[in-house]
This record gives sequence, structure tokens and C-alpha cells, in this order.
Amino acid sequence: MSGRVVVLTGGVGGAKLVLGLCNLVAESDVTVIVNTGDDFTHLGLAVSPDIDTLLYTLSGKANTHQGWGRADEGWRFMEALSSLGGEHWFRLGDGDLALHVLRTQRLGRGEPLSTIITDFASAWGIGAIILPMTDQRVATRIDTDAGLLDFQDYFVRRRCEPAVRAIRFDGAPVASAAPGVVDAIMNNGCRAILIAPSNPYLSIDPILAVPQIRAALAAARAPVIAVSPIVGGNAVKGPTAKIMRELGLDIGPTAIVHHYEGVIDGLLVDERDMPVRLDIPSACADTLMTNLDDRICVARAALDLADALR
Amino acid sequence: MSGRVVVLTGGVGGAKLVLGLCNLVAESDVTVIVNTGDDFTHLGLAVSPDIDTLLYTLSGKANTHQGWGRADEGWRFMEALSSLGGEHWFRLGDGDLALHVLRTQRLGRGEPLSTIITDFASAWGIGAIILPMTDQRVATRIDTDAGLLDFQDYFVRRRCEPAVRAIRFDGAPVASAAPGVVDAIMNNGCRAILIAPSNPYLSIDPILAVPQIRAALAAARAPVIAVSPIVGGNAVKGPTAKIMRELGLDIGPTAIVHHYEGVIDGLLVDERDMPVRLDIPSACADTLMTNLDDRICVARAALDLADALR
Repeated sequence: MSGRVVVLTGGVGGAKLVLGLCNLVAESDVTVIVNTGDDFTHLGLAVSPDIDTLLYTLSGKANTHQGWGRADEGWRFMEALSSLGGEHWFRLGDGDLALHVLRTQRLGRGEPLSTIITDFASAWGIGAIILPMTDQRVATRIDTDAGLLDFQDYFVRRRCEPAVRAIRFDGAPVASAAPGVVDAIMNNGCRAILIAPSNPYLSIDPILAVPQIRAALAAARAPVIAVSPIVGGNAVKGPTAKIMRELGLDIGPTAIVHHYEGVIDGLLVDERDMPVRLDIPSACADTLMTNLDDRICVARAALDLADALR
Repeated sequence: MSGRVVVLTGGVGGAKLVLGLCNLVAESDVTVIVNTGDDFTHLGLAVSPDIDTLLYTLSGKANTHQGWGRADEGWRFMEALSSLGGEHWFRLGDGDLALHVLRTQRLGRGEPLSTIITDFASAWGIGAIILPMTDQRVATRIDTDAGLLDFQDYFVRRRCEPAVRAIRFDGAPVASAAPGVVDAIMNNGCRAILIAPSNPYLSIDPILAVPQIRAALAAARAPVIAVSPIVGGNAVKGPTAKIMRELGLDIGPTAIVHHYEGVIDGLLVDERDMPVRLDIPSACADTLMTNLDDRICVARAALDLADALR
């Protein structure tokens, strides 16, 4: 079966699914809508962590061992910055700086983020369409037992240690979807819309908080399939399970279905979490993505579920 | 003899003299007034080439072989920038970027350049006082046979190849000297004011084009001594001799004395350019600065001439 595939994604885990998908269907048939709630200005530079992770992953430049940033990265900038007393809790690699410096320069000229990212992807030979969820400013902020924290303060500086009470997405209610986002979701040629196994609360919710995107997903003809971020009653990486505990949720596929209610038509569940009784159609697979074959298998299982629901 | 010493300087050649001076007298007795006419915004970053050369030289971080930038520099940023289609005619090293990023961030917050440079020098344990000539924007522009060029366009991108007709310093007539500059020149405890053997037309003239600085030099009690940038009828490095030819000047100490008329009280001439008959007091020395001993010797010869003129 052919047709375009749309993926909603956050950072590392989502990028793995997208890479699998791009090795399963034609890369040019893939549109990725990326969370920008993590974006922030650091040292005066505009940083877009989730978009950059995707750029590095799809262009073969990612540091797969570390889980973020570029392979073969250097740290002379950080060393010099520290020697000058600059803030060093958020690490910017020497090569990585090129994206931030160029992005900052072009945003400063008034260019929209979506145009800049299209150019970056094109320069690096990426065939998939990468779209920020919005060209406007949305800032994920975390209400915790240590106070209301900016995302990177919570995520990087405090290593997700404060307990989460609530999460908000400043600017999202008044943000417009970036050009191409709603079209991609509503397109008649769209075969499936996948929600990557990124953190639902930190990485996917900001995307769903943009009103045009939530409305488009509700109206889309294509099936919307989430890949569960839970593997064997836990999260593969990152604070998903910890946040679910702190929010008083059971860590399992049922809570994920409940969370995405009104948005998804089906859930791909990890085989370790079976059997489970869900209110919506589901399929199961080994969703742990260690190598490229795993990533392709998970993408295939998600697409198969979507195709079965058409 | 003790007392404070002020040096007016541009980039590499001037930094050598300053380093010699800081190894001859107490570093804390040295005030350096630095050309900022070369400063420009590149990739959205505020770059101050002459100030940074001095920071690197006095903190022992300079790449003495290359003549600019940091020793043990990396180029991952430039490689990534090129891969993204970014401008790469002006090379910014990975470690070097820290100065530019921090400076840009702090300038953007409204902090004056002089405060920022004081902090950089302090962080790197530099005892000398380093002052930009002004906290305002002065831009050296070169009128050439290829048109009116921004300084770095002429100097780096076109490698000084166009023939110079005239040089102007946009903003200088209305610029104020940075805090501390006039005080340093007029101070009763000032033993000598040295003009480094930097390019008189490109590196020293922008400083002299700031009205308060020129007036302070004319009124200063301390002797003003220039170190001739000419060595054996040529310039050691850079386009000084080429520019003198293009401006129809004889390449020798006489033209330098004439150029600095009304500003200097004496000239230190290279021994290779002797004998020469000058209208002002002079001394001679081997002014070629290959190693630290040479630099100290040149600084000593310039100070000796100043002391003789008190």
C-alpha cells in the first residue's frame, strides 16, 4: 500500500521510529511534525533540541551512543565558555553550534523556523519533510515540587528530579500550526498518522496543544496510530514512567489510550505489556528499537495497524 | 623608572609589543587601548578581532604560528556551517566562538563592550587593563578600485588585494572614548604612551579618529612614542607597505613621522632603516619581534626613548 505517512514526534525515541519509517517507505512520502515546546534561547542562541535530533538522525550524523547531539563532536567551545565563566549546564557541541548560530541569525532576520528547517534538511540531503509544529513560540513549562520550571531547567539542569504536578504549554493556545502541518494531516493521500513513542506529556502534548493540529487530527481521514512509549511496564528512556507515577497514573497501555482519547484510532502495544484489554483497536510488537531492523519492524507494525483500520 | 604605560594597538604586531611590555614592567601598570574599527557582526555574532588577539596573546592562548586565533583550535563548527551552506570566508574556530557568543549575548542585553572585555580579561587572569577605544560602533571602510568595502571584506575575503584610495572610519567623529581611555592618557602617573607597530592606516588611525582620544594625546603630559611599523623598507606582515605605495607614500620612517604629526613626540625606528633624518626625536633598535626577548627589547627601547624625552 502506498501513500504519505505523517509522524508526530519529540526527540530521540521518536527519531528512531522516523528513521525506521524512512527505511520502510519512500523517504519523500514521510512528513514529520516535530515538537518545539523544548525550544529555548541559550547564550543568545535559538536551540531546537527535538528538530535537531531528527536532523542528525535522518542525515546519519547522530551520536547514537550518547542519545543526543552529533557523532564525533568536539567540546572546545564549552571549555572556552567555562574558562570565561559562561553558563555550562547545557552542553552545546562545536559542530552542533552551526545549527544554532545559523538558526539564530535567520530567525533574527524574520525568517520562519519552518523555512530554516526545510533548508537545513535539504542541505543535508534529507528526503522527508520536517515541519516544526508551529513557527510561533511555544514554551513547555513544568509545575513541580521545586516550583514552575522552564523545560530545559527541569529536563537538563535538574535531570527531571523534581516531582511533576502539571505541565503547561505557554503560547500553544494562540499558536498556529506551521505551514504544511494541517495539509499533511488532512491530505487525502495520507495513509497513516503515527504518534511516535516519545514522552506523551512532554513531547507529544505540546503538539496536540496547538488547536489547529488537534482539530485536524480529529477530522483526519487517515487512521491515527500511537506507538506506546511503555515497554514492559516502564519507559525505555527518559522520565515518562516517573512522570506517570507522579501524576498518579498506572504505567501501562491503558493510561496511554486514555491520555490520547479523541486523538488516536489505534495503539501499537509492546508485546511485553500483553495481554491487555483496551477500548480501541490495537496490535502488538516488540517495540524496543535497538538497531535499524528493529526500527523498521516497529514502523511496519504501526503502518499495518493503520492499514487494517482504513 | 616606574609609572603607568599606555599602548595604542591594533592586532597581531601590536599584541607582540604589549606582551613584551607586560614582561618588562608590572602587567598591572599597562593600559591597552585597542582598535575596534575591525569589529563586525558575522553570522549574527559580534566579532572584535583586535581585542581578541590581545586577549589570546596576553593569556598565553594565541596561535603564534598562524598569527591569529587560538592555539589548539578546532574547526568542527566551520565544517558543519559549510555543510549547511553557511558563509565560510571568515573562519571562526570552535574555541574562539565562546568569546563571540558571550560578547553577542551581553551586548544584546545592553552591556557596554568595555565591561565585557574587562570581565574576559579578568577571567583569563590578564593583569593589564584592556580597553576598547570606544563602546560605540566605529566601522573602518576602505575605498578601493573595487569599490567601497567593509573592512573584513577587504582584509579577509579579498586578502587586501584591491588598491586602496582612501580609508574612512564611520561613526568615529561622533564616538566617545570608552570609560577609562582619556583618564589613562591624561593621568599624571603616566610614564609613556606607546603607539604599537600596527598598521597606521587600518589599525591606529581608527583610534586617532575618535576626537576625545586625539585631543587627549595632544594634551597628554607623558611622551607619545610610536614604534615604526616599517622594518628595512617594508612591513613585517600585513598590507602596510602595499597601502603606503597605493597612497603614493615613500615606505620609510619619514612617512610614519609625517603621518603621526601632531600626535607623537618620538619614533622608534628599526635599525635597518637607519640612517634617517627625522624632524622629531628618535632612537633605533632591532624591532623585528620573533620571540619574547625581542618583544621585551623593543618595549624597553620605546620606553627608554620616552624616558629620555620627559
